[in-house]
This record gives sequence, C-alpha cells and structure tokens, in this order.
Amino acid sequence: MNNRHTTISFLSDYGLQDEFVGVVHAVIAEIAPHVRVLDINHNVPPYDVRAGAMSLTRAVQYLPTGIVLAVVDPGVGTSRRAVAIEVGGGRGYFVGPDNGLLSGAVAMAGGAERAVELTNTEHHLLAHGATFAGRDIFAPVAAHLANGVPLTEFGPLVDPVLLTPGLIPLPQESENGTQCEITWVDHYGNCQLNIGLDDVRTWGSPIKVTIGENVRMCPVVDNFESIGTGGLALVVDSYGMLALATQRGSAAVEIGIGVGDAVSLARA
Amino acid sequence: MNNRHTTISFLSDYGLQDEFVGVVHAVIAEIAPHVRVLDINHNVPPYDVRAGAMSLTRAVQYLPTGIVLAVVDPGVGTSRRAVAIEVGGGRGYFVGPDNGLLSGAVAMAGGAERAVELTNTEHHLLAHGATFAGRDIFAPVAAHLANGVPLTEFGPLVDPVLLTPGLIPLPQESENGTQCEITWVDHYGNCQLNIGLDDVRTWGSPIKVTIGENVRMCPVVDNFESIGTGGLALVVDSYGMLALATQRGSAAVEIGIGVGDAVSLARA
Amino acid sequence: MNNRHTTISFLSDYGLQDEFVGVVHAVIAEIAPHVRVLDINHNVPPYDVRAGAMSLTRAVQYLPTGIVLAVVDPGVGTSRRAVAIEVGGGRGYFVGPDNGLLSGAVAMAGGAERAVELTNTEHHLLAHGATFAGRDIFAPVAAHLANGVPLTEFGPLVDPVLLTPGLIPLPQESENGTQCEITWVDHYGNCQLNIGLDDVRTWGSPIKVTIGENVRMCPVVDNFESIGTGGLALVVDSYGMLALATQRGSAAVEIGIGVGDAVSLARA
Repeated sequence: MNNRHTTISFLSDYGLQDEFVGVVHAVIAEIAPHVRVLDINHNVPPYDVRAGAMSLTRAVQYLPTGIVLAVVDPGVGTSRRAVAIEVGGGRGYFVGPDNGLLSGAVAMAGGAERAVELTNTEHHLLAHGATFAGRDIFAPVAAHLANGVPLTEFGPLVDPVLLTPGLIPLPQESENGTQCEITWVDHYGNCQLNIGLDDVRTWGSPIKVTIGENVRMCPVVDNFESIGTGGLALVVDSYGMLALATQRGSAAVEIGIGVGDAVSLARA
Repeated sequence: MNNRHTTISFLSDYGLQDEFVGVVHAVIAEIAPHVRVLDINHNVPPYDVRAGAMSLTRAVQYLPTGIVLAVVDPGVGTSRRAVAIEVGGGRGYFVGPDNGLLSGAVAMAGGAERAVELTNTEHHLLAHGATFAGRDIFAPVAAHLANGVPLTEFGPLVDPVLLTPGLIPLPQESENGTQCEITWVDHYGNCQLNIGLDDVRTWGSPIKVTIGENVRMCPVVDNFESIGTGGLALVVDSYGMLALATQRGSAAVEIGIGVGDAVSLARA
Repeated sequence: MNNRHTTISFLSDYGLQDEFVGVVHAVIAEIAPHVRVLDINHNVPPYDVRAGAMSLTRAVQYLPTGIVLAVVDPGVGTSRRAVAIEVGGGRGYFVGPDNGLLSGAVAMAGGAERAVELTNTEHHLLAHGATFAGRDIFAPVAAHLANGVPLTEFGPLVDPVLLTPGLIPLPQESENGTQCEITWVDHYGNCQLNIGLDDVRTWGSPIKVTIGENVRMCPVVDNFESIGTGGLALVVDSYGMLALATQRGSAAVEIGIGVGDAVSLARA
C-alpha cells in the first residue's frame, strides 16, 4: 500500500530572522521533493510550548490531511522523547517533541492511535551538534513519512497513553463569577479568553469584566466596528471564543494585559 | 469553458506572529490543491486600508495572471460588502472587502468589468464567529474561483461604478513649490513621495526640500551609494518615484518622518 | 542538453514588512512557472553583506541542487558587478551582487567554475529605477537560468579568481588565550563564535570566557537544558561551533553582547 503524503504543515518557534525555517524546508525538499510545506506559524514565542500547542490546536481543523511537523523544543538534545504519532488510521501524522506541544492538536484530530519514539538514526541527518532537532531529526522523519516509510521504521512503539498531555487551563467558577485566563494575544492585540460564547449565552450583554482592580461593563459583540471608539468589548472571535477587544486598537496595550493574566466574568 | 487558475496572490494585515496566514493557505489547499499561493505582503499595518492598497498597487503589475486575495478589513462582520471583481475578460479576479483596498490595483489591471457581492454562503466556510472573513469567506471564494466556479455563483452582480474608490493623494502646487506627501516608508527607511522623476525632470539637481522647519538641498540620484555619508537625497526609486533616502541608514529615523507627513519640493 | 532547474533558493535583506519578497516570487513565477522558490532568510540586517554571507554559508549545505538567488546589495545601481556563478559542472548557480555575499557559499559548494557579469539586458526586466536589482536583474536571470538558458547568454565571462572574496574572521592566538568574535546572534539570543568544538576539545570543561571586563567559567555542553538557570555556557551548536547561551533566555541580552564583539577563550 502506498501511504504517501503531499503536504507537511509546519509550526515552530524558530522565528523568521535566521535561516532555520528555510533550512527545514530545504531538508524536506531534498528528501521528499513532491511535498508542499505549508507554514502554519513560526513566531511562537521562543520556548513557549503552551503557546505553540494553542496555535497548533486552533489551526489543525483547517490543515490538509497529511503530516504535521511542530517544533517548540526547549529540551532539545536531552532525554525528552522525539515522537511521531499516527491519527485517523494513518491518514495523518504528527512529528515533534513529546512535551505537550502536540497533544491538543492530536486530540482534535481524533486522538493518537499509534506512536513511536524516533530513535532510528538511519532516518535522521548526521548532526554537527544536538541543538537543531528540527533540521536533523523531525524534518527528515516527516519527509520520509511523506514518502511512505512505515511508522514503525522510525523507532519502537510507545503506548499513546504515556505521551505527555497538554495543559489547557479551564475557567473556574467562584463567588465573583467565572475566573478566566487570557490564553492568546493576537497580532491586533485582541485577548482571547478560555471561555466561549456558549458558556455565557444566557447572561445577556453587557458582561461585568474584572481585571485586577479594573472593573468594566463590556458589551458582547460580533465585530470590531460595533465596539465604538474608546470602548472595550467581548468579541465573539473566529473560534467562537470570547476575546477582549477595542476598535482598531490593541486591547492588550490599552488595558496593559497579556497571556496568562486572570480575567473574571460575571452577569451585569 | 475551463476557467481554472493556478495562482492566488495573497496580501493582508494578518502579520506573521499568529497562524492566520497559515490557516488561509490551508483553506485554499483544501479546496483547490492545484493552486500555488504567492504571498505578496502580510505586514500591512493593522487596519491600514490605504497602506494595503498602495502595497497591492505597487505589486500588481508583477503578479502572475490569476486571482488576487487581499484582506485589510477593519469593518469585518459589518455591512461592508465582500466582493469579487473581474478584470481582463476573466483572466483575473480580485477578492476582498469593498473598502478601497482593491481599487488602485484593479485600475492598474485594466479596471473592473464585473463584480459580485459574496452573499452565497454555499461557497463559504461555516464560521464560529464573524471576525475572520479571510478564512471563512474570501479564501474559500478565491479557491473556488481558481477551480473554475463562475463569478455569478458567488452572489448578485454589483455595478462596478458603485465599488468604493481608493484615495490616492496627489501633489498640489503652491507658492512654496509642490506639496507632496510621504506615501510609504519601506523596510530600509526610504520615504517614497507621491511624485515621480518625470514631474521634476526639468528642475535640475539639487532640489529644495522642506519638511516642517527643516530645509535641505537634496541631490536627485539613482542609487544609494551616490548619496554620500550623512547626506539626504531624492533617489529615483524602483517605481520611478522620488524617495527621501540616506546612505545605508533610515531616512525616516534620521529625519524623524513617516507616512502621511508633508514634504515640499521646489527648484533650487 | 536540457539544463533546467526546479528550485531557486532565495536569501535577501528585503525584510517582510513590504512586498519586495513577494514581487521577486512573482517575477520568477512569471518567467519560470515550474520553479519552486525556497525562502532561506529575508531578515538579514539591512545592507549587512557579511551577515548575509554567513547565513547563506550556514544554509548552503542543506539546499537542494539548483539555483541560489541572494541579494544584500548596498551598492545597487553602481558599478559593482552583478554576477552569475557556476558550480559543480552546471549542477548549481549562484546569482547576486559580486560584493562578497556569495563567496563563502560558493566555496562550500565546491568553488566557482565559471562566472559571468550580468550585462545582457535582454534577460532583465525594464526598470523604472535602478534600486531594485533583485526584481529587475537577479530574479529574471535566476528564472531564465532555471529555464535552461546557457550561462554565457547573460553576459561576458569573468575570471572566477577576480570575484570579490568574503571576509570570514578567524580566531587569533594571544597570551590571554584565543581571541574569538561573535559572528551571529540567533533568534533565541545564542551568540555563535568563530571557533568550533574541535579547536577546544582537549581543553576540558569549563572554559574561561572573557568578554570585556567580564570573566566567566563556562561549561561546554551539548544542549540548553544542561546550562542550568542563571548560568552561561558554551553550547556546541548545530554547526559544531561554540555559542554562548543561557537556559531559555537570551545570552545576547543578558550579557549585553552582539555581533562583532570580541570574546576570549582560555583553558580554565
């Protein structure tokens, strides 16, 4: 059976100021010239496994069937496992470090069915040092998988239940309302919370928002123009989550908030 | 007739710090796997429709025949129209918001021949919220157009004369010379003016340049090395326009100027 | 003989905030639609020929056989030569300015066998100004080379020994140890030195590191997690070179150092 794949979707914290991303593309092109590499995001904050996991989890539902290569890997070169994970009966694979980066996206894709640890160096590049596993281990494995090399060629099977889980913060009920957390500040400064419209649909609008000492009554709106100049609102974002937003400005900058900050929501 | 297209050229203000651009690529790859996406520029300043329009207008003469997808869309989710515009007898299409972003490039491409409002949700993605029309409306429409779906399938025809025009500032004659405006500060800090070499060709060199209180005699040169260390010059840039430039430095930083600032030119 | 190429690898200092890179892609797609453009790095610091040369030299061993287009070109529009350089009996070509940018990579690829000066304007775009040779000269030449146009069609042969050499700083022995230089600060703030593990392998670990007034005993490690919180180490990086690094932080920021700074190494 020919289990070739035509797309490798690629996420990392490599940034775009060096040749890291380009070299990974080059390694894939050399091993699997038929593959199209789809860059998801390379500006995950350096070493921030959780931010990478969330970016990948948001994107995965839109990615073409095939292989996902994801590298945010502060433990590169240590004993942390390098893995490839099979989903959907072999229709998809996730390749990267076993540090929680992949787990949310794997769950969205139906869950891990098989996994291997990438110990077979026959499918790696010869490395001058241990710090660029994306180039030397993960990209070659992703490319060989795209060529149809069977999963079990890359190393021994690992029980999927032993893979490192991701930590996704859940909102907590408290006497002051629902304690949420800012999980993502996007390019525009919109601050996504870990709570969706469905969870507050019966509350009406506005909603009482408490950030530290700051208490605001924020309308729930479905676009930015409805916020009005100078206002702060809860926008239903493109994932159905609530996000603190201003009109044509950065809520993060204007309110002075960032990822991980606590935000309480309560009925007005 | 098979009206398939192989390239979608893509411009936006999505930035590169999130997965927005990657998700749009993924949506196109899913619907029209034969398409190559050519990224024009994704660092248009957030919400800056005019800057996006100018970047697209500069680029359009170089783009391959096919489809242009452009999204700078502060009014996303409101009643602003989403449109697809046909040029050149169907050899090209522009897809994006009808807010002036597309107008200059459409004019460069010969002008709008037909346009439709993108109201047929059959060709959109099911959206979790209204804030990411690039993913949910514009990219799917561009991809289906690339697959050969006829323009009129996407919604009702709109009279092209009713499309929102772009606002391109023109130089003004005054008693102090010609009042120009900085229309673009590029990566190097060169400041493009809205006046071309042809308009000052008879003036000789240097030209008297007034920026606020600052009056400088600037030579007209055709490369950066001719400026000399510490100097300020009017370089004939790669579009034939005049640009304030220094040698291996940023004119914008050194002079303290930016987009929209007024600059007067006069014969020396 | 059909000497077509399918990949053009592309490096520049164009940055990603304008449409420069996109327009170069467009020009290539128009002339040679079969070509895949592989972006190596476009955030070489503006005008920094040496930084561009080093990025290209690090990447070149991983690039697919074919054509390399590299543009860091402060002398654009002057009499500096524009060249195409043949390596490996025509299996590869380097196209760019003859200012030292290409020399290290050409040497890594086996050395220049033939070179031509790009004076035949028949294979250039008609330019509105002289400042964007990447678009108007280098990209068209690279694309026509990919189409199989013979090297000598682009202009007269240049003796390869007359090409501008690159300047790669070498470590110097002194009474205080080996005087090195920081040659690259990467996205993570790791500071690569111009000395490899092989040169200090007999010294043991730690090594005495002197940066200005600052003297530190730095262990030699092969991954970042071994550094320990608050520590500074010499990591064997992915090119086998020594790099000053901290754990999950930026050595450049924490120590206040940058490219070109002197670093002395001595046995502890």
